[in-house]
Amino acid sequence: MENFTAYNPTKLHFGKGVTDQLGETVLEYGKRVLLMYGKGSVQKNGIYTKIIQQLNSINAEITEFSGIKSNPLVDDVLEAAQLGKLNHIDVIVAVGGGSVIDSAKITALSIANGTDPWAIMKYKSKPTTTKPLIAVLTLAATGTEMNGAAVLQNHKTKEKIGYVSPLMYPNHSFLDPEFTYSVPKNYTAYGIADLIAHSLEAYFGDGDASLSDRFVEAIIKEAMEYGPLVLNDPENYEYRSKIMWAATAALNGLTSYGRKYGDWGVHDIGHNLSFLFDTPHGATLTIAYPAWLRLQKNRIPERITKLGNQLFGTNSADETITLLEKFFKSILCPVRLSDINIHNDKKDEIIDQMIKNQIDGMVHKFTDDDRKKIVELMF
Amino acid sequence: MENFTAYNPTKLHFGKGVTDQLGETVLEYGKRVLLMYGKGSVQKNGIYTKIIQQLNSINAEITEFSGIKSNPLVDDVLEAAQLGKLNHIDVIVAVGGGSVIDSAKITALSIANGTDPWAIMKYKSKPTTTKPLIAVLTLAATGTEMNGAAVLQNHKTKEKIGYVSPLMYPNHSFLDPEFTYSVPKNYTAYGIADLIAHSLEAYFGDGDASLSDRFVEAIIKEAMEYGPLVLNDPENYEYRSKIMWAATAALNGLTSYGRKYGDWGVHDIGHNLSFLFDTPHGATLTIAYPAWLRLQKNRIPERITKLGNQLFGTNSADETITLLEKFFKSILCPVRLSDINIHNDKKDEIIDQMIKNQIDGMVHKFTDDDRKKIVELMF
Repeated sequence: MENFTAYNPTKLHFGKGVTDQLGETVLEYGKRVLLMYGKGSVQKNGIYTKIIQQLNSINAEITEFSGIKSNPLVDDVLEAAQLGKLNHIDVIVAVGGGSVIDSAKITALSIANGTDPWAIMKYKSKPTTTKPLIAVLTLAATGTEMNGAAVLQNHKTKEKIGYVSPLMYPNHSFLDPEFTYSVPKNYTAYGIADLIAHSLEAYFGDGDASLSDRFVEAIIKEAMEYGPLVLNDPENYEYRSKIMWAATAALNGLTSYGRKYGDWGVHDIGHNLSFLFDTPHGATLTIAYPAWLRLQKNRIPERITKLGNQLFGTNSADETITLLEKFFKSILCPVRLSDINIHNDKKDEIIDQMIKNQIDGMVHKFTDDDRKKIVELMF
Repeated sequence: MENFTAYNPTKLHFGKGVTDQLGETVLEYGKRVLLMYGKGSVQKNGIYTKIIQQLNSINAEITEFSGIKSNPLVDDVLEAAQLGKLNHIDVIVAVGGGSVIDSAKITALSIANGTDPWAIMKYKSKPTTTKPLIAVLTLAATGTEMNGAAVLQNHKTKEKIGYVSPLMYPNHSFLDPEFTYSVPKNYTAYGIADLIAHSLEAYFGDGDASLSDRFVEAIIKEAMEYGPLVLNDPENYEYRSKIMWAATAALNGLTSYGRKYGDWGVHDIGHNLSFLFDTPHGATLTIAYPAWLRLQKNRIPERITKLGNQLFGTNSADETITLLEKFFKSILCPVRLSDINIHNDKKDEIIDQMIKNQIDGMVHKFTDDDRKKIVELMF
């Protein structure tokens, strides 16, 4: 087992009606609030009204920044940070899924340190402080509500990349499973895929972390049991709860204690696809994971088989991959690029981009030949 | 799923050599240190010397309080608190297992609030603040290193009881698996039993917390795999690591999210036995759990069978209990009172004490008749 530090400063409030405490929680940090959200779904489903009521109850001075898109852009973050600085905000309230909360994390750093968001993302400027951040989650998927990671993309540099800092844990996160009732079927499925992929990235990391492995298996089993159920019954509180908590647990540290690194090669491939085709993150992962596993199956057969044995009771690496793929299909996720209308004519472009950006895992490193093979396996 | 808050402020440093950072960590809180430890084993195994070197490296002013016994006494805590107050200490460093760290938690509250330790334990005075606490763990068992709970006993009132407060999470805990190499075989086994019992207390709590159930199963499987291995190879770093981390995970919140309460009936029975006969805590649990399960087997057969299915692949509640008992025996833990030389002549005394103290679970409540039956089942 590798040495590790177990520490997670986020206070996470989970359950029906938890945002009734949002106002008083915001007030602990001040009244000047930068309220960040996405492209308006929170206004349609009534969540926006609830949040505004909470902020009005403490007479908050609200600066709004909306329109954050689902593959979030550093340009939006720059704009949000300028707005936040101008209005001397005390605290950010981010209402949305991973893209909104990730954008808010970098916005908070940019405001507090007066630095350019992309310089932060590229580890070129080192933030030393941040602004308080309160997250209200409306999509079970990325786990950003209880970790110190964020992903942004940049059209100028043609990159989608991640950044990690202990400063970025939200101070509070509010998770009401009812807030996810109106998430459409496809995005609910992408969220389930995302949480499974996060668990797998940890599992295919380094080190002998047997308890963390068991937690990975537990989380994936939970997702495989309740994922199909929630898709058929989207306003079932219990099913939404199970998936929402599993998504947090998949990336709040728990699956990684005792390892130095997770792998994250599949996420890197996925980010590259999202950048090129604006594909939803979860959909890129269900395409990339089977391909990645097929590339690795003769390199780490025992590891893949151990997983398959726990999840499916099989002792074959091939069957493990097939059954995982079958599960992704059963929740209507794409497993080949052709499923999302990306065809052979794009192959060279994807390979070039994979090589140019040196897409890679932290543990299982790619050669350029691997990059080419993985792209071929995704068709 | 019940509403819950996931929050654990302890920063836990795990692995070989982590106490090399102890000095600088203590210094964050001040130089006047109350150093608490037990009956001298830390002096024999060299841990004391390492700690003193760390404290000397920051020129700490050390006040020592030692001699805390393995079923810790409130009288010792009172004395430690008086000593700490007299010397205006900034921070407590507790080096030991559950008894030392639990004593230190209540000492910290007593010093900071100027209140009597037993009044705190009985929820008669409400602490509002505490002194910083840094734990150095030398025994994998109770999970106190990453939670807000403490247990003490009082000879005057003839009670051994628990107290829970969010103020009691250690600020930092240092867990070096090498520090547990010299723990004798029987206490290593009691620690394994304790961590299994903690997991079961959560499992037999209320609410439909399926992911927490899966974490319980994961932790118990880990303990059942590596427990016997560490007993046969006590200086194996990997085995000691597995058990040490499993013991923390068994009671740091993880197994309880989504429940209102764990049960804790077996712990209440165990504390009562420890009080009467000074029996080591873990040994009381391996006697009480089979008896408790036999009392409950016709009341909650599905729940017991689900556990048995996950742990042993059986679909029988009876076989689940027999196999759990068999595991406890295999690690040389007692499973009947006669195994620790408590015989029928003590039966009435135990029953009287169970009834007098109204020993009970939080979820599965006992009648006086249940109390009598459980005692009979322990013989």
